[in-house]
Amino acid sequence: MDAQQLFEQIKKKRSFLCVGLDTEIKKLPSNMRKSSYLLFEFNKKIIDATAPYTVAYKPNLAFYEAEGINGLKQLGETVSYIRNNYPDIFIIADAKRGDIGNTSQLYADAFFKNMDFDAITLSPYMGKDTVEPFLSYADKWVILLALTSNLSASDFQLIENKANGLKLYEQVLETSKTWGSMDNTMYVVGATKAEMLTAVRKHIPDHFLLIPGVGAQGGSLSDVAKYGINRQCGLLVNSSRAIIYADSSERFDIAAGIKAKKMQQEMEELLKSFSLI
Amino acid sequence: MDAQQLFEQIKKKRSFLCVGLDTEIKKLPSNMRKSSYLLFEFNKKIIDATAPYTVAYKPNLAFYEAEGINGLKQLGETVSYIRNNYPDIFIIADAKRGDIGNTSQLYADAFFKNMDFDAITLSPYMGKDTVEPFLSYADKWVILLALTSNLSASDFQLIENKANGLKLYEQVLETSKTWGSMDNTMYVVGATKAEMLTAVRKHIPDHFLLIPGVGAQGGSLSDVAKYGINRQCGLLVNSSRAIIYADSSERFDIAAGIKAKKMQQEMEELLKSFSLI
Repeated sequence: MDAQQLFEQIKKKRSFLCVGLDTEIKKLPSNMRKSSYLLFEFNKKIIDATAPYTVAYKPNLAFYEAEGINGLKQLGETVSYIRNNYPDIFIIADAKRGDIGNTSQLYADAFFKNMDFDAITLSPYMGKDTVEPFLSYADKWVILLALTSNLSASDFQLIENKANGLKLYEQVLETSKTWGSMDNTMYVVGATKAEMLTAVRKHIPDHFLLIPGVGAQGGSLSDVAKYGINRQCGLLVNSSRAIIYADSSERFDIAAGIKAKKMQQEMEELLKSFSLI
Repeated sequence: MDAQQLFEQIKKKRSFLCVGLDTEIKKLPSNMRKSSYLLFEFNKKIIDATAPYTVAYKPNLAFYEAEGINGLKQLGETVSYIRNNYPDIFIIADAKRGDIGNTSQLYADAFFKNMDFDAITLSPYMGKDTVEPFLSYADKWVILLALTSNLSASDFQLIENKANGLKLYEQVLETSKTWGSMDNTMYVVGATKAEMLTAVRKHIPDHFLLIPGVGAQGGSLSDVAKYGINRQCGLLVNSSRAIIYADSSERFDIAAGIKAKKMQQEMEELLKSFSLI
């Protein structure tokens, strides 16, 4: 899938929603907890309820690794379930990996060949040669951390470069934007800092952004669109907890569907107001 | 294990060697390749051959994730094998993780509780709150990337901070050194840049460093000691490929043992020359 094809999906669904599958056993309805395949069973219901309203799913690896081998099996099943039932939906491994070249090649094989994800999140700290093995896969994407949504993001990401005055997250954008292209590279920019999207768009007007932090972390969807939208939309807005834990009873999937639909409707209005649909 | 206990192991073994278990099927002796539990069988032989000469093992997660569920089972078996047979050896998960707080907590559980690693490598890019959940585990360590051994390390790690002239890797040391203590925090500093250890030691004179890049990547052991050693040694020097792939025949374990012993003997001389043993 390239950027234009992703934009086609956004127009078709009238949505730029990504649902984060941060599935944690202790947060699931207690009457489900007898199953040993609980993460997958929960995900399957969430996916069926939200698929009409979303263009992407983003399982976070930590939630599956925390359950060991059984958790990782269920991650694999989740990816296969999406691929087989909703083949046009973009699947992101939120893994935040990054290692030297020969090691990155193995991570690329693990996520793109063995598991068939469309994209993976990566830390830029170690530089270009840690990202290149992922970019060598056709039709797959890397999503580099630029400005994250957590409080401590300011520890290093806002440091100003003495040579040119760019903040570290801006330097990451500026340096890395030529490693790949707008058809295989996105950036993570937290919604909690929506006004900084103006600075982001100066460096990368055309690239897609993956925006966490809307919902549970407090960011505003209309601000994200105001400062970040471009001619191909250029946004995937992620919501995890606000959707998948919208209701803690066994009706969780219905509540998740309602919440996802509500976000899709807000996104449809925004896409219309920017004349993209 | 705290820093003093690690130093006691170093004195006992007369070695500060860490063996990297970057085990890759295509590099293993062809007559072993019929086994479906090859990674573990290879590791077991490498461990038995090198344990007398090493104070730490460091499996890199990518090599196991690349083999899917079966690879991760063998990682677990490898950790258990070291723990059960060589209980004093320090075990590092080279995972280079880093995510927001609630997610980091799950990674901490996965690596420290489910798998019983002693330490994990982390990327500092997202800041303090991504590291804290790991530090809350007693007797466990975080190993933060500071200056890595790959060519592209200079893309971002050498950027100078406009506010104080510190390079990014120095700022990482300076900012993060108070998050934990010298008893639960180490730093990755590549041996390919041994003279930069002088700058590193200005910021963190007492912390342990994990030094990759000796051997296959070209760094010199005597330079590392010259610029980096401290009163508790303060060094774990990692060698992966140069030891575990010292010989590609079925006698690989004997060759690995010989190579590890040779490094241990060099380290013993260095420890003596700095009057640490």
